[in-house]
This record gives sequence, C-alpha cells and structure tokens, in this order.
Amino acid sequence: MKNREIRVAELPQAELKPEHFALHDAPMPDVAEGEVLLRTRLMSIDAANRSWMKGATYREAVKAGDPMPTYAVCEVVESRSDRLAVGDIVATEGVWADYIARKAHRCQKLPKVEPLTHLMSVYGIAGKTAFHGLIHVGQPVAGETVLVSAAAGSVGGFVGQIAKALGCRVVGLAGGAEKCDWVVNELGFDACVDYRDPGMFKALRKACPNGVDIYFDNVGGAILETALFLMNERGRVVCCGAISQYDTEGASGPRNLPGLVVVKRLRMEGFIVMDFADKDAVALRALQHWVASGQIKVFEDVVDGLENAPQALIGLLAGDNRGKRMVRL
Amino acid sequence: MKNREIRVAELPQAELKPEHFALHDAPMPDVAEGEVLLRTRLMSIDAANRSWMKGATYREAVKAGDPMPTYAVCEVVESRSDRLAVGDIVATEGVWADYIARKAHRCQKLPKVEPLTHLMSVYGIAGKTAFHGLIHVGQPVAGETVLVSAAAGSVGGFVGQIAKALGCRVVGLAGGAEKCDWVVNELGFDACVDYRDPGMFKALRKACPNGVDIYFDNVGGAILETALFLMNERGRVVCCGAISQYDTEGASGPRNLPGLVVVKRLRMEGFIVMDFADKDAVALRALQHWVASGQIKVFEDVVDGLENAPQALIGLLAGDNRGKRMVRL
Repeated sequence: MKNREIRVAELPQAELKPEHFALHDAPMPDVAEGEVLLRTRLMSIDAANRSWMKGATYREAVKAGDPMPTYAVCEVVESRSDRLAVGDIVATEGVWADYIARKAHRCQKLPKVEPLTHLMSVYGIAGKTAFHGLIHVGQPVAGETVLVSAAAGSVGGFVGQIAKALGCRVVGLAGGAEKCDWVVNELGFDACVDYRDPGMFKALRKACPNGVDIYFDNVGGAILETALFLMNERGRVVCCGAISQYDTEGASGPRNLPGLVVVKRLRMEGFIVMDFADKDAVALRALQHWVASGQIKVFEDVVDGLENAPQALIGLLAGDNRGKRMVRL
Repeated sequence: MKNREIRVAELPQAELKPEHFALHDAPMPDVAEGEVLLRTRLMSIDAANRSWMKGATYREAVKAGDPMPTYAVCEVVESRSDRLAVGDIVATEGVWADYIARKAHRCQKLPKVEPLTHLMSVYGIAGKTAFHGLIHVGQPVAGETVLVSAAAGSVGGFVGQIAKALGCRVVGLAGGAEKCDWVVNELGFDACVDYRDPGMFKALRKACPNGVDIYFDNVGGAILETALFLMNERGRVVCCGAISQYDTEGASGPRNLPGLVVVKRLRMEGFIVMDFADKDAVALRALQHWVASGQIKVFEDVVDGLENAPQALIGLLAGDNRGKRMVRL
C-alpha cells in the first residue's frame, strides 16, 4: 500500500492553473484508537474548492502547502472503532489523497448504492443542494417559471428536472449551443439560452413570456444582473454559488441591486446544503422517487485518477463539464 | 378659491434641479358624482418621488407635463358622496396642488390627530414602513444588532427607536458629525457612524462588536457593500430603498453580491409599505404605545408653502432633512 496526495503548491492570485498544485508521495496515515483508515473512492469536484483558496468562507481557508480538501466517498480498509467495519462506505471531509485516517464519528455511513457514483451526484451534495435550495429557499409552485444558471452543471441539471417534476416552466442558461441543446433534449428543460450570445436578454425574455418567479443562481455576476430584470414581483433568487466570481477579482456587482429588490419585493437568500441536514432524509426519499419514475435522469462526469484532479477542477471552472463532476480513484 | 399646481417641466437626466419643475395656475377641479373636492393640507416628500421620474416602478412613471404625484393628507371641502363629509381628513394619492378632486372610495379616512403632521410621520407611511420592514422582514430579536442607514431620515429614525424598544443594539449611519450626534443624543441610538468618514469601516466594526444581524438598508450602493461585510451568518438585509441610486446613473453594484449572501446565508428582501396594509392596525397600535411610553420621539421636518416643494425634494435627496419631511399648505 502506497499513498499519494496533492497539495496546494501556491495560492492562485487570479486564474487557477496546474502549477498551483503538486503531487507528492506521502506516508500511510497512522490510525489512532477510535479512527478508521479510509481508501478514497470518489472525490467531489466543485466550484467551492476554488472559493476555499480565496480566504475563510464557511470553512477555514486553504493555505499553500495544505493538501487540497474535498468532499469524499471512501471505503473503510482498517477500523479501530466499533462504529464502522472494514468494507463500509462512508462520506467524509477528505483530501486529495489515496488514503486518509479519520475519527469514525466524523464519517457518515452511506448505503451501498449501484453505481457508487450516484452517492456523489443525485444522492450526494449536488442532488441535495438542488433539492433543498429549490424546495426550501425557492418554494416553487406549479405553473411558475424557474430560471436556472449553469443548467448543464451538476446542481443546475437537478434543479431543472425537479422543477419540471413539480409542474414549473423551466428555462436554463448554459455556455454554447451544443450544451443548450443537451439541456433541452436530454434534461428536458423547456428552453435553454446561451449566456455567451449577445442576444441573451431578448432570448431569455422570449423563453420566459410570463417572467421569472424563481431564479436559481449558480453563477452571480452579469447573469444575475440580467435575471433580476426579468423577475416578477415577489420573485425569489436562490443564491447557491457564484462560479463567475470565484476565479476573478474585483468584478463589479449587479448594478440593479438593491433597486429592483425593493421595487419588485424580491427575496434573495443564500444557503449551504449543510443548513438543511435535518431534512436530508426527506430529500433522499423524493430524489429516489423521481429517479425511479424517470423524471430525474442522472448524468455524471467521472474523471479517473488522483493525478487528474487539478485539471478536473480547472476545467470545471471553465465550464467544460456536463453533470456532476467527480474524480474516481 | 384659487388653485395652483406644480408640474414636471422636464424629466431630469441626472441630478434633480429646480428647473425640472414649474408652478402653474390651474382651474378648480370639477367634482363628479361620487367624488370629493379636497384641500391639500400636507404633502409627503420622499426619495421615492425621485424614483417615479426614472421609469415605471410599482407605479406608473411620471412624464414631463404631469403634475407631480404625492402621498397627501387632505381635508374634504365639498362632498358628492355619502362616504365622506365636509371637514373629514383623508389620505389619498394626490398631486402637488392646492386642490384636487378624487373618487371618495379612493380616499382613506383618517382619525383627527393632534398635531395633524403626525399622520405624515409616525402614524403615516414613515412609521408604518419602519414598523413593517423591521418587524415582518427583519424579524429582530432582543440582543441582536440592528444597523440602520439614513438614520436621521424619517424611516431610519423610527426603525432605530423601534429596535431599541425591542431590546436590540442599534447603530446608525448618517452624513456628518452633527447629524450623528443628533441620532445618538436625541433618537437614542447606541452609536452612529458618519458614512462620509474615510474610516467608516473601522468605526462600524467598533460600533458593532458582535457583527450585524439586521441591516435596514435605506440607501443601497457602497454602504450596502460595506454592511454586507459586517453581517453575521443568517443575517437579514431589509431593502427599503436606494436613495443613493435614485439620483445617479450607472452606479456599480455591491461587488460582494451574491458571494457573501451564499457564504453567510443572508436573506435580502425588498418590501413596500402597501404590502402589509392588512397589518396596519397592528402597526398603529404598537406605534401609539411607544409614542405614549416615550420610547419613540417624533421629529418632523415641515416646509411651508406649495411653491417650496421642489426644493424640499431636492434637499431631501441631498440629505438635508432630519426626521420626516413634508410640505404644509
């Protein structure tokens, strides 16, 4: 058994590049009483990884020299705790490494799902983020129009499919005609607009003839500004992330804020998936129902090999994924 | 009986100036069946007047040639309706004029209060806006810190006094040391910071040692951006207005939006006082209680004479009022 880990070689000042990471051989972790040794099976690749490199957020900032943190699905290969047995599958706060040791009580035992990757997509953070954000923050009602940015991304794709299942009109935003076609034809959105198109605003207005009741914002920036103009009175902006802002500095904010929030009586609300941990069981039951009924199709973007994690993250920030991106070891 | 009215001579492209208005002699209005003839007693001067000149908001845009609309307290001087009698005091959508005719059912009969001006301040839109926005949108709890911009303005002054009555720590923002002293010494805020001071951020941090739980935003712009940095997790931003944006074009928005909304799970919510009309009776009872107990002191800024309305509005936008500004005819 040999261990490797990827550390942050240097914090990025602007765009994230491969040289900000370095692969190292590492010792096998010691396993103390109450701990388990875990083999990393899947590592979630998220825009949030990038934000952790920009300073303290809802978690400590990542510093140069640190192994890159990740949400991970792991298999127990040695146990010094009654809580977990060898062969158990768990979710935990991991790092980009083959092996890690963790206190058993910091690991969440997961059901054994086929394929395992679904624990990272529809039954993982992406599916739960989509469910909690749309249902609890957005509060959709059948007949309303839901606009979703990063619609071809992991969270966005689930948001749109859930909203469709609930009887909403669903319009996506994605980069490029090919992605937009995929969002409509494969994910079943009613329409999808290319945010790179200079005619985006007109196209959106056409795609949302009754305005927008819920904007599920995965990107912030100029797209948020545009969406605000289309919102109906009493609309809700679900603030799930700001991909467009993670990788740049000093971008200007939406110029129509807070003016339109007042005039249209909008509610803009941020959330993090952990806020709704007490409602995870409800989310999983609903997601399983929609997967079984075929109303949610699961698309996954699996990159193989620990050494490919940096490029997987860099590519995600540039928007080259379709569906939930993860690295399989 | 002679009538005069002030019309919008030309729509402002940038800063509002006296030449955008013109005083005209006007015919006495005809009073149709079901209508009343009203003598304007008080006209509310609000930052919102300026926003109506910028395009459609929650009401139709004001066009060149239109008499300037206003929220007005009037006395019935002739009645062709069973609903109202000569001498009744009513609130209605008026214009800047000595006399107007209105359908009786579009007039809200008011109690006869001494002094009459209180119907425009603490028992009028300012007091109700402060109450509904703070209570229903902000949802304060004793011990929380409430930050209020335009603290020396009509709404802001009531917000702070209500929050104090509820057991919150209250910090204001106002322009200039003299105004700030007044906010602390007369209105009873715990602290007030001069937003023109280059050391504003440090001063605010010192004034809010436990961060900010509710930011009651009357101004938008750079102050909103600063306030967001100080917000605690799960904080609420009550979006009541955007004075800083009414009189300028193309200002940039807060650069930390929506990033901080996500990270701190903030709720930003806009409202308009009419949204809570069904709760006005509750608001009035509470406000009367606090006025009687001395926990709310009422400051009014009364300008005499119809012809002085344009300057009263221009001055308000420049921040030269203390307490609710109105014009008395």
